[in-house]
Order: sequence, then C-alpha cells, then structure tokens
Amino acid sequence: MTFSALDSALTGPFYADPVVAAIFDDRARLARFLRIEAALAEAQGHDDAAKAMRGIDPASFDLAAIGRGTADQAVASIPFLTALRRQLPEGLGALVHKGATSQDLIDTEAALAAKEADAVLAANWAKALTGLAALARAHRDVVMMGRTYNKHAATITFGFKAAMWGIGLAEALEAAPAPTYRATLGGAVGTLAAMGKSAPIVAKRFAEILGLDASAFPIQVSRAPYVACGLRHAMAMGAAAKIATDILFLQADEIGEVAEPAIPGRGGSSAMPHKRNPVGCAAILATHMAAGGHAATLIQSMASAQERPAGAWQAEWLAFGSLIGLASGAARELAAIAAGLTVDAARMKENLARTPDIAVDRPDAARWVEQAIARVEDIATKLIPGK
Amino acid sequence: MTFSALDSALTGPFYADPVVAAIFDDRARLARFLRIEAALAEAQGHDDAAKAMRGIDPASFDLAAIGRGTADQAVASIPFLTALRRQLPEGLGALVHKGATSQDLIDTEAALAAKEADAVLAANWAKALTGLAALARAHRDVVMMGRTYNKHAATITFGFKAAMWGIGLAEALEAAPAPTYRATLGGAVGTLAAMGKSAPIVAKRFAEILGLDASAFPIQVSRAPYVACGLRHAMAMGAAAKIATDILFLQADEIGEVAEPAIPGRGGSSAMPHKRNPVGCAAILATHMAAGGHAATLIQSMASAQERPAGAWQAEWLAFGSLIGLASGAARELAAIAAGLTVDAARMKENLARTPDIAVDRPDAARWVEQAIARVEDIATKLIPGK
Amino acid sequence: MTFSALDSALTGPFYADPVVAAIFDDRARLARFLRIEAALAEAQGHDDAAKAMRGIDPASFDLAAIGRGTADQAVASIPFLTALRRQLPEGLGALVHKGATSQDLIDTEAALAAKEADAVLAANWAKALTGLAALARAHRDVVMMGRTYNKHAATITFGFKAAMWGIGLAEALEAAPAPTYRATLGGAVGTLAAMGKSAPIVAKRFAEILGLDASAFPIQVSRAPYVACGLRHAMAMGAAAKIATDILFLQADEIGEVAEPAIPGRGGSSAMPHKRNPVGCAAILATHMAAGGHAATLIQSMASAQERPAGAWQAEWLAFGSLIGLASGAARELAAIAAGLTVDAARMKENLARTPDIAVDRPDAARWVEQAIARVEDIATKLIPGK
Amino acid sequence: MTFSALDSALTGPFYADPVVAAIFDDRARLARFLRIEAALAEAQGHDDAAKAMRGIDPASFDLAAIGRGTADQAVASIPFLTALRRQLPEGLGALVHKGATSQDLIDTEAALAAKEADAVLAANWAKALTGLAALARAHRDVVMMGRTYNKHAATITFGFKAAMWGIGLAEALEAAPAPTYRATLGGAVGTLAAMGKSAPIVAKRFAEILGLDASAFPIQVSRAPYVACGLRHAMAMGAAAKIATDILFLQADEIGEVAEPAIPGRGGSSAMPHKRNPVGCAAILATHMAAGGHAATLIQSMASAQERPAGAWQAEWLAFGSLIGLASGAARELAAIAAGLTVDAARMKENLARTPDIAVDRPDAARWVEQAIARVEDIATKLIPGK
Repeated sequence: MTFSALDSALTGPFYADPVVAAIFDDRARLARFLRIEAALAEAQGHDDAAKAMRGIDPASFDLAAIGRGTADQAVASIPFLTALRRQLPEGLGALVHKGATSQDLIDTEAALAAKEADAVLAANWAKALTGLAALARAHRDVVMMGRTYNKHAATITFGFKAAMWGIGLAEALEAAPAPTYRATLGGAVGTLAAMGKSAPIVAKRFAEILGLDASAFPIQVSRAPYVACGLRHAMAMGAAAKIATDILFLQADEIGEVAEPAIPGRGGSSAMPHKRNPVGCAAILATHMAAGGHAATLIQSMASAQERPAGAWQAEWLAFGSLIGLASGAARELAAIAAGLTVDAARMKENLARTPDIAVDRPDAARWVEQAIARVEDIATKLIPGK
Repeated sequence: MTFSALDSALTGPFYADPVVAAIFDDRARLARFLRIEAALAEAQGHDDAAKAMRGIDPASFDLAAIGRGTADQAVASIPFLTALRRQLPEGLGALVHKGATSQDLIDTEAALAAKEADAVLAANWAKALTGLAALARAHRDVVMMGRTYNKHAATITFGFKAAMWGIGLAEALEAAPAPTYRATLGGAVGTLAAMGKSAPIVAKRFAEILGLDASAFPIQVSRAPYVACGLRHAMAMGAAAKIATDILFLQADEIGEVAEPAIPGRGGSSAMPHKRNPVGCAAILATHMAAGGHAATLIQSMASAQERPAGAWQAEWLAFGSLIGLASGAARELAAIAAGLTVDAARMKENLARTPDIAVDRPDAARWVEQAIARVEDIATKLIPGK
Repeated sequence: MTFSALDSALTGPFYADPVVAAIFDDRARLARFLRIEAALAEAQGHDDAAKAMRGIDPASFDLAAIGRGTADQAVASIPFLTALRRQLPEGLGALVHKGATSQDLIDTEAALAAKEADAVLAANWAKALTGLAALARAHRDVVMMGRTYNKHAATITFGFKAAMWGIGLAEALEAAPAPTYRATLGGAVGTLAAMGKSAPIVAKRFAEILGLDASAFPIQVSRAPYVACGLRHAMAMGAAAKIATDILFLQADEIGEVAEPAIPGRGGSSAMPHKRNPVGCAAILATHMAAGGHAATLIQSMASAQERPAGAWQAEWLAFGSLIGLASGAARELAAIAAGLTVDAARMKENLARTPDIAVDRPDAARWVEQAIARVEDIATKLIPGK
Repeated sequence: MTFSALDSALTGPFYADPVVAAIFDDRARLARFLRIEAALAEAQGHDDAAKAMRGIDPASFDLAAIGRGTADQAVASIPFLTALRRQLPEGLGALVHKGATSQDLIDTEAALAAKEADAVLAANWAKALTGLAALARAHRDVVMMGRTYNKHAATITFGFKAAMWGIGLAEALEAAPAPTYRATLGGAVGTLAAMGKSAPIVAKRFAEILGLDASAFPIQVSRAPYVACGLRHAMAMGAAAKIATDILFLQADEIGEVAEPAIPGRGGSSAMPHKRNPVGCAAILATHMAAGGHAATLIQSMASAQERPAGAWQAEWLAFGSLIGLASGAARELAAIAAGLTVDAARMKENLARTPDIAVDRPDAARWVEQAIARVEDIATKLIPGK
C-alpha cells in the first residue's frame, strides 16, 4: 500500500483525484524544484544558470539517491541541490540557490503544488455546488420526511434538503479566506542577509516569475498560511461528509429515497452479485474521517522552535499534502454524486405515510429554497477565478 | 477537577481567563437562555411574555434538575423550558418558544456566548500584538544568534524575532475571516414552517433584538460557522505556542537571553525556593497541546445526519467552548508576556561569541522590521472594532 | 456550560455518570489531596501530622483562592499546601509534603481518582457485556438481514449480531492490560534525594497506605501508564460507538428492527410530541466523537521535557479526566441499552422480504454464537475483581 | 512527494525504516494477496489452485489497473481477484476466494504486513532499550543538572536520566499487550455461511498456513486488535519523543551536554557549512507529531456500521499503515542515537556551576539506576521472541 492507503497505487485512486495525484508525483515535484531554482537564478540575473536548469529533465534525477540523502539531512533540498549542481556546466553550480536556504525551496514548492491542486479542487467543489443547486431546483416541490435523531420529525422538501447541503458546503468553503500561495525567500535565518541590498528586488522578482504571492518582508516562521490552507480542506470534507451521511442512510433498502448515480462496473461486491455499494459516499466518509487527525497534526506543528524547528516543520509535510489529496477525492466524488443523484419521489411519499399525523410543511420549506440556491450558485461562480 | 482541568475551580484559572470563564458560567448561560426566549417572544409580538421572562432571575432555576433532564433529553433546552413555563403566569407559558426548537435556543446561545467571549479575546490578542510590536521596536538593533534545529545558525536581531512573532500571530488571526455569530431560528426541521408567513420577519427581528447576524433563510445543518470559529482559536493558540516555545528555550539558565516578566508570588516551586518557573509559557503550551484534539473533534462533528444528528451536535459542544476557554488563557498569558518580557542584550552578545566565525546580519534583519511592525500594529487595530 | 459541556451542571449528566462525576468533584479532589499528604506523613513516621490532616474538612478550603494560586504556579498543589499548612497546629506544617514535590501529589491524586472511577466503569462495562450476551442468547434464532455498506447483503441472526457486539467491546477492553494505578513519589527531580536512605521504605509504605501500586524506583517522567489508561477508555468508547451506530440505523422508522428501552420522560422532543429520540445512542456517539481528540492530546503530551515539562504535563490533565468522564457516560448508557433493548423479530422478517433471492444463513450464524457468548461472559466476569 | 511525505521516494526515508517500507510496497502487498488466496484454496483442499497461485509473479499485475478498479469498488480485492482469475488456467478461477469476502483478504493482508513489520520494529526498540541501558550504566556516576520547566532544579546523574528514558520506553511498549495478528475469514456478513459445515476447519487451517492467530469464531466487526496495534506504535513514539525533546535541548550550543552521534555526511545545512543538525531527533519528533492525529483517526474509525461500514473501514487503512511507518523511523533513529550518543561530562559539570547553591543528589539518584537498568534490559529481551 505504501504506508498510507492514500498513496498506494493499488488503493490511492479510491481516495484521491488522479489529476491531483499527478501534481504530487515525485517527478512533478522535482520539476517544480527546478522551476524554483531557475526562477531564483533569473531573479538574481543569472540567466545562463536559469536557462541551464530549465533544460534539465526531472527524470534525470535518481529518486532513491535523493531519498537516502533526505534521511541524512532532514530535507530533500540538500541532496537535490547536490545532484543538480552535478548536472550543470562548470561555473554555473555556484550560481544555484545563492543566498537561499532549504526552507525557501521546500516551502515555495509546497505553495506551487497547493496552488495547482487547489485549482482542480475548486473546479470540483464548484461542480458539486452547481449540481446541488440543480437538484434543489429540480425537486423543490417534492415533499419528504425530515428526520432528527434519525427519526421522523416533520416534512421538508427534497429541494430544501439539497439547498441546505449546498449552503453547508458553500459556507465551509467561504469560512476561510482565499488561501495565500506565497513564495518564500529568507535565507539561512529568514533575513535574506546574504543577498545584501538587492534582497527586496530579488524576492519580488522571484515571486513574480513563479506566479506566487510576494510578501513585503521574508517570512519563514509564520505557518498560518499553510495551516489555514489545510484546515480549509478539512472543513470542506466535513461539509461533504454531512451530505454523504445523509445519502448513505436515505439509500438503505428499506428507505430507498435516493441512490448514488448508477455507473456500470461500479459498486459491485466480491461476495454478493445482487448488490450495489455506495462507493462515492464511502470515499467521502473515509477521507473525512482522516481529516480531523491531519488537522490536529497541522495545528500541533505550529509550535515550531526558533528560526527553524527540528521536527515540527517535517511534521507539517505529513499532513499538508495528505489533506489536499483526501479533499481531492471528496470533491471529485461529491461532484459526481450531485450531478447524477437518483431521487425517488414515490418512495419519499410512501415513507411519509408511516407517520400519519405529521405536519406537512412543504410550502414553507420551499419558500427559502430559491434564496439558498442563489447563494450556492453565487459561491460556485466565485470559486472559479476568471469565470 | 471536574473532568477537565479547564473547568475545575482548582485548576481552571491556570488555563482560562476568568473574565471569559464567567461568560461560560452555567448561570450566565441560563441568563442568555432567558434573553433569547424573551427576544423570540418579542419578535412574535408577545410583549407580555417577553417582559415576564426578562423579569426572571437566572438564580431561580435548579441547575441539578435541569442537568437530570438533559440526561434524559440530550438537550438542556427541554428541561429549561419546562422549568421556565412553571415560573410564568398562567397563559404566558404557551407563548414561550413558539414555533422554535431546541436547536434554535442552543445554537443561538452558543453564538451569543462566543461573540461576548471573542470580544475579550480580541482585546488580549490585540494587546499581545501591540506588545510584540513594541518589543520589536525597542530591540530592533539588538543582535542575537538565530537558531535552526536548535543550533547556532546566523545572526538576527531580537527586533526581527519579535516582529516575526507578531507576524505569525497576526497571520493566524487573519487567516480566518471575521467570525459569524448567527441567530438560529428554524423550528422542528429547519423550515420555520410553524411560523407561517410571518417567519422571515420574526427571524429578522429575533436576530436584531439579540444583536446577532441574521440569515436570509433558516440554517441549522450548516456547521461551518461554528467550526471556523473554533479553528480560528486553535490557530491563534498555534501562533502563541511558537512564541512560548522560543521563550522557554531562550530563558534556560545556560542561555538566559529572555525571561518572562517577574511577578511577585508567581512561578515558585514547591520543592525548590531558588527557582522561578515560566508559568505563562507553560499555560500557553498546555492550551495549545489540547487545541489540535478539539479541532479534530469539531471537524468530525460536521458529519451530522439529516435534519438534526444524534450525537454529532452534542460532540460539537464538547470542543467548541473548550477551544474558547483555552484560547482565552493563551491570549491573556501572551499579552502579559509581550508587555513585560525581559530582554538581556548582554547575554545575547555573550552567546554569539560561542560560534565565532558566524556571519553578522544585523543591518539586513533590521531592514524588514519596520514594515513588519507596521503590519502587526495594523492588524492589532483591526481586531478591536470601533477603535 | 463551563467551557466543556461535559463539566456543566446543565449538560454534564448527559455525557457522564453522576457517580463518576462525584469522584472528580473539586471537593473530592481536595479530600484525596489530604489523604495523600496524610499518607506521606504517616509513611515518614509523622503520625501527629497525619492525624491532624485526616481531621481537616475538605470543605474548609477556599476553592477560588486555590484556583488563583494555580494560575500563578501552574499546579494546584502549591496553593493547596500553603492553605493546608495554615490550618495545621504550629510545628506540624514543616512535616507536610517533606521531601516531596508537586508532581508527587498531583500524579498520585490522578491515580487514586482513576482507580476509583475505573471500578465504577468496569461494573458498567461488565453489565453491558452481560446484557449483550443475554440478548445474543435470547435471539439466537431470530433471522435478520446482514448489511454491508448500509445495503442488504446476506442474512445473519440477531443473536450473532449481539454476540459480535459483545466481542467487539470485550476485545477493546482486553486490548489494553489491567491499568496501573501508581503512587508517585520522586521529589524535586525524581530521585527522592531529599529523603536520604529511608526513601525506598517511605515510598513503599506510602503506596501501601493509599492502596496503590508501588514501583521499585521513583518514576515521574514515564507517562505511559496515564496515557494507556486514557487510551483504554477511548477504545471502549469506540466499541460502544459501533453498537450505537448500528442501533441508530436499525431503529429508524422505516427499518424498526430494534428500539432503545422505552423509559417514561426520556427522549421527548421540544417541537414534536409524537417522537421518541434515541438519547442513549446520542450520548454514546457524542462521547466517542470527542474521544479521538483527547487521545491525540494524551499522545502529544508524552513529548515532555527533562525532569518536568512546562505545559505537556498540564495538557495531560485536560484529556485524562475528560476521557474517564466521557467513558463513564458511554458505559452507563450501553449497560442500560443492552439490558433493555427492544427487538422486533417480525420487522426483521418483513425487511428480509425486500430482497427476495438472498441466501439465508441462519444455521451458520448461530453456530458461532454460543462460543462468542461464553467469551463475552468470561471477560465480563474478569472485569469485576473479587467476583 | 506523493501526498504524504512519508510515502514519497524523495522524503520517505527520513521518516521510515526502508526495511519496513519494503514490506509495505505495493508489489509486496500483491505477493501477500497471492499467499493468502493460495492459503485459502489449500485450506479448502484445492491444492491445484493453491499451487497455481503460488506460481504467479506479483510483478505480472497491472498496478494502475487495480488502482482504477479500487476507485470503483472501494476495495483493492475486487480488481485484484478479477486479474488473478484471468491469470489462472481454466477451471481454477472458480476455486479462488470461495466463500470469502473482500474483508477477509484485506484484513488478513494487514495482519501479515503488521506482523512482519512489528518484528523489525521490535528489534529496533530492543536495540534502543539496550543502548539506553548501556548509557545508564556507563554514566551512572556522572552528575548533571536536573531541570524542571526548563530551569535548573536539583542534580541528577546522567545515568539516572538515561535509565528513566529506558523505563519510559519500556513502559510504553508494555502498556499494550502483545498484539494479535489475526487471520480473518468470515465471508459476506461474517458468518462463514457459504462454507457450510467445513467452516471451522477451513478457518483454522487458513490461519495455520499463514502463521497467524486463529479465532474460535469469525470476527470482522471487532476492530480493537487493529486499533490497539496502531495505538501501541503511537505510545512508543511518544516515549521516543520524550527522549528526543531532552536531547534537542541538551545539545544546544550553550548547553552542550550531549550530542547525536556524529556520522559523516549527516546533518549538514544547505546555507551554513559550520553546522551539524540533530537529524535523528528531528525525525523522531516529526513522526511523533503526526502520531496523535493518526491515533484519533483509528479511534474514530471504530464507529463502523453494521456488518461492514461504508468509509470507516477505509479510513482505518489511512492511519494503520502510517503509524507503522512512522514508528519504524522513530525506532531506527532512537536505536542509533542510544547506541552512539556523545555525553560531555565536563560540560555537565560546568553547567552545574551556574546555580551554585543547588543540592547535589548524586548518590541518591544512582541508587535506583541498577534496578531500572535491569528492568529495561529485561523488557528488551522479551521484545525479541526466541531470544
């Protein structure tokens, strides 16, 4: 499995979107390392070195050798830079990573990866929101039982339920601000001292070349931007898990009010051919169940010591990428479910009859649906920049 | 201790700000229950009932009896409302909680408590930011060793370090948006059906009377506003823990570069009279160490079922208030530390000498300090509305 | 609420067993403090001091004053000992806490509280196991649908299901060894140096008087016994939550195969008089949902520094008691559910008919039930020492 | 990086022991899948099918195709079995996985992997214990400062400290019983119904062939054995993190009392050639910082529904292997540190002088060391079966 089922070739595709997994592939990471060091050289006016680095094939590196080096150095940057310098023509090696430190490379790479991944995720979350809004609109007059503590309570409409699912996800995505993807350049202890007077200009250019946010001053020790990015994913998974919890219950054989989209070859059972398993809900619930633990790790990793900690920073890497990966799967599955959920209005009506004297609140539930749909669609639009 | 040391009369004051603890006192909670039910009655035009409720003394309720009722009903609102109706003149009982449900009372009370508490916390975080900015300004030219992996690395200034502490806290507070304190009014299954056509007007007035945010439609199932509020506190504790980690190390006897403010009667040891313990750092680190776990619980509790879950909602209450309490102590301690930290420039100089050939980066570190101070002070100002 | 709903007089009884809550009351804790200091004095041969301390009423202490002292000292022992000495006749004060340190008092008190609480919990878990075994026996031939992924899969018997519930709980309780309740006596840095040559004898007597486990050498820095104790509770809650998850689903109106015991005045709804809520399952699920977070805190708190950490120890107290409190509620509720679960064999048969061509595995399921029941009952017996 | 830095070829070797990583390789997992299905066929008397499966090369499977199948089926077993049947001679395919279900294969594979990995870990933990005992013995008379709250407190010996490190680890490893590695065979809903009367014999043989523990009855829904196994690793990492926390502080330049073993090419800095970073401590602290979160996930995953849950089971896989991987790195690093820690008695003496009037407790500290060493060595011996 590799240690985490999330990263195994055998099981990873259940948890994560392959498009996002490709972003986090080791070769893709080396490509970003090269891109970052080239950007730094260019920002410092060493165009030859930049050009040479841009010409290097990420496949030319020996992954296992870099891995062994990381075991000795605690960061992949050191063995990578050694290997990189070996590949460069003489004289250019000294122009690589000048005045920078490992953290500049590692943190900037994480920002690039997260930015790229988040664009994919945003598209899937937006698709999920749009799908939920469409479900709400299509079924706004379909009366069904509302349930509290898993018991019949009073009636709602399925449109109301789908709209509230959308609001829940929209609010989870809105509850954190647009994440920051910051280029980090601070040098040995975060002061960029080794770059002398040119430091501010180099740092600004470095960020521009990479298409990342710049900061007015170098910041290595403030981890909130990374943590916030991870927690945002955890919250989105929480909202998705609310929806999956609902669907998993409602599609039980005795209830039968909804069903995950039927897709040939999906959801079969090895022992029971008559059965279709709710694989999408299972994926969403599994990813969410691991999200809280990773969030806890990120929060703990903020207690980092001095100008660079021994351990807390490396702990961050265990959780940060995992949250992106897990969220990518949840987003993909929710988008698919929202786009194709089967809704059985007849079964909803049938189930209502089990509790005869219950109040029917349809008109009142419907009243709010349009406003909620509008809000959900508005947030879906905002998620996709340039749209 | 009561089960959590946070809530024990014997140990709670170590972890939490007593001003905030008073907000979460059971009697204060009953007072908010009364205020909310009065607001609802008023919003529905039942001014007599509202007036009667406003005249009731929270101390007149039997806490233990309500507690026993909660064990049977899973929510304190049901035994509270029963007790409340008994205290009202005949005829008015029927006008209490009309068309509302337990969640409306419980969630709205949590929003009121959080809003009141967050104002106290914001003042302390702002005080901490201001103190850190002042430290940075006062010591902007004091050269000290920068340390990575707890080893001498290259020089910084203490001003730079203090400024970066401030930036770390400021970014943690900014990384989540201004929290929402929402009045919840949804009735049995969130549709406000029982209020008929007047529902939108009643809901709006209800929020206005309480000074809470209103929503264009009733929302009970979207938990992100509560979770985001809790996670914001966890992140702030993370930034505070970074500072406490640094200070705890720097005030070790052999290093001696800083010390917590000396306060008579504080930090003594039961076995060693010669010793002064860093009690403020201990409090900050202890609160932070529990923050990740509570954050995980909040995130897990988002997987709530249908129109009201059995358990997930009650789990939220275990973590939500705890995070506020823990953050209140961290904020109080950090504000005090930032206001009075002892900085020993001579020891800093002495320690520098241990690693003779190290680069001295003072001027470069200082370059960024003013900009960072300005940002820290700007965010401190924004934290206190109306200031 | 106080910060945690677990500790509020209004809501605590939903989450925790009042018998166990009484053990963790602040006054009960002071009584244990007195008992411990008296035991230490007695072990050192200061019988007068011991007798004097045993005569002091825990109610004579000013809780708030001790709380204020803890805020200044990070431990309640220091203000407690100051107050205690004030209450003793002249000359005896110097014989109190001789050669001991705060951690000796605090850790020993936690061990005493945990031992007392665990006896109550063990009785409830044993009752739950016995109840589950009885359910299994009573319904061993009742065929019902087995469900995987919340869908009809193949038939089982309810006896098999109840037996497997019992095995799950039994294995969770067995997976950790009988917890250690250790008397801690180490002095300032854990070496008991201040007690000179008499240290081993004093330490042994101290443990004997308190009825706690002794150690061959003083141990303050090894936290595993406390962590293991907490994790054991978390695992038991996990096994209980599996059962509650099953019941919550099976008692949905459309399924109706089981129901929580009907108890007058329990499970009503503030807005819907026709409804009975599964309050026991809600309590079990809520306590479990917070268990993982507290377990994470305990594990993090093991990274404690040197001879006594600043913060990690205090973080332990936030999670240790909370896990006991939460588990006490889960155990109480599960015992009650297991003793009185309503099982509707007719509805089970009716639901089977929805999936006509399914294999009926009754005889095969029943085959294992007797062996599983025997194991469950065996572990129930072992849980209650002296039984 | 792949999503988790633990599983990346570039960074994984920092966190995990490569010997253990090889056990969790996808190909090694497929080899265990084959071994398990062969054992099942053999236990059912289908020796031809068993032999055929044992002849298949794990490298002959298309990992990506199985991964795509898992995304559709939530378990890798279904696409694996499909691919396996294709590789078998006609007629034998029907004899594969007869009467079993996916969970039987997946859970049994996890038990095999854990058993194999735990043997490697046990050897490293034993090596760490032996090393710590040797340190304690070698330095039992070396006086050093004991520190509480990171401040000088009273003297201990380094022998006492090392012995207490050993006790902390030993107690963490002992606090959970010898883990169970169970062969799972239950069929569709855990009753082994499809195997008829031969079920008990087949299940027993199946476990024997694989060298795993058998159970008197099929158990799929009891997750405690897996959770306990994971929590044991988390606790061991906690004990290791205590030691790493101590060393990280003591090897600070100003303190200099100990140093990680000097290994050429290890611990360099990309920006500061004069520096040697404590890479072993960093690895231990990073792995531990993620352990609490994974433990929380495991505990949450126990709330699994009915005869097989949708999601909770898959969440378990995200944490179970990760804890093994992280612990493998912590064990390897601690074994290396304990075997070669540099102890500077002169610096210890020098630092003592900073707090002149402190009590010197050497003889008293030394008194306990022999007993502690004996216990540590005893547990080290017990960790390695057959030794």
